[in-house]
Amino acid sequence: MTAPEPAAPPRRGRGRPGHDQAAVLRTAVALFNRRGYDATSIGDLAAELGVTKSAIYHHFASKEDLLRLALDDALDELTAVVSAAVSDADGASARDRLREVLRRSVEVLAAHQPAVTLLLRVRGNTPTEVEAVKRRRWLDDQLAGLVRDAAAEGALRDDISPDLVSRLLFGMVNSLVEWYRPEGAHDAATVADAIASIAFDGLVRR
Amino acid sequence: MTAPEPAAPPRRGRGRPGHDQAAVLRTAVALFNRRGYDATSIGDLAAELGVTKSAIYHHFASKEDLLRLALDDALDELTAVVSAAVSDADGASARDRLREVLRRSVEVLAAHQPAVTLLLRVRGNTPTEVEAVKRRRWLDDQLAGLVRDAAAEGALRDDISPDLVSRLLFGMVNSLVEWYRPEGAHDAATVADAIASIAFDGLVRR
Repeated sequence: MTAPEPAAPPRRGRGRPGHDQAAVLRTAVALFNRRGYDATSIGDLAAELGVTKSAIYHHFASKEDLLRLALDDALDELTAVVSAAVSDADGASARDRLREVLRRSVEVLAAHQPAVTLLLRVRGNTPTEVEAVKRRRWLDDQLAGLVRDAAAEGALRDDISPDLVSRLLFGMVNSLVEWYRPEGAHDAATVADAIASIAFDGLVRR
Repeated sequence: MTAPEPAAPPRRGRGRPGHDQAAVLRTAVALFNRRGYDATSIGDLAAELGVTKSAIYHHFASKEDLLRLALDDALDELTAVVSAAVSDADGASARDRLREVLRRSVEVLAAHQPAVTLLLRVRGNTPTEVEAVKRRRWLDDQLAGLVRDAAAEGALRDDISPDLVSRLLFGMVNSLVEWYRPEGAHDAATVADAIASIAFDGLVRR
């Protein structure tokens, strides 16, 4: 995977914050995505950056610390988007909130592609991975609930299980990590509109 | 990833064919998916199977040989499905052939889930991976062409780029490797129908 967008700067970690720390995290995420987290060592990361291992440990306590910061970056963004969608504070219909969460999820994936790529590949051995998988499952459950609410409103066809609809819609969104390129032919807003159009109205010309 | 379905038996490799050879390949694919191809050694595979390394080399020339057999298994199936769809030998419309290739792709993913999972994660360092990426790209190009043909027939809405439609539809199909479980609530035929219904007609109740 390429890493076309910088990850957000870390919000925790040892030592003074600044460019160095963000650059280390960004490179770590790119390496984890390219080689796998388990197969990447702090030594590999130091070699890639052309610095000593102790220069990395100045900023980060451990490899797992780097993983946690990257996964939290993706999860915090996605959690904010999903929490807003499942709250009906503004009185919007579940159908409109579902359309909005599809659109905003695409924006998060496009803006945080390396961190979300890492998140989607996590399988869960370390405590950090177990926690991330738990947070992902919470997101999936909330989204499935929102699809159920939209179906219960009578807005959606009822011949496909809401759980399956949720899997497929967010499968379409998540596929962005595999093929979306910020410098490519389609910007995030165009992709978001395409997903919402296909999902709600389908491809057939009417 | 779990490996709920056995990969198809290998069609090449050294030594006599039979149960042992298929079991070695199946276990290799599961390990590659769990740990990553680069991070898995023939020693790891031997330990997982409880046999010696030379027992593995009796059947397979190298680790890359195992990778090639697994990727060919997935690619041969997908190539057959896509080739049938892009040939209009039976005079079916591009729209009907697109619907059919969606359906049959789901069947291949469900029946060959471990091998397709491996294929979708290939990044391309070894000659085997480079070749697999090339074959995947051919499949993607054929599918994008089929979507273009269906749009040109006037059957599909023309406000979304056919390339983007193709990415999103097969993003939805490919997401199965992440969440589909043969023992789960939805069988492959149900999933295939759901994808075709969402893709063509959308979720909105009419």
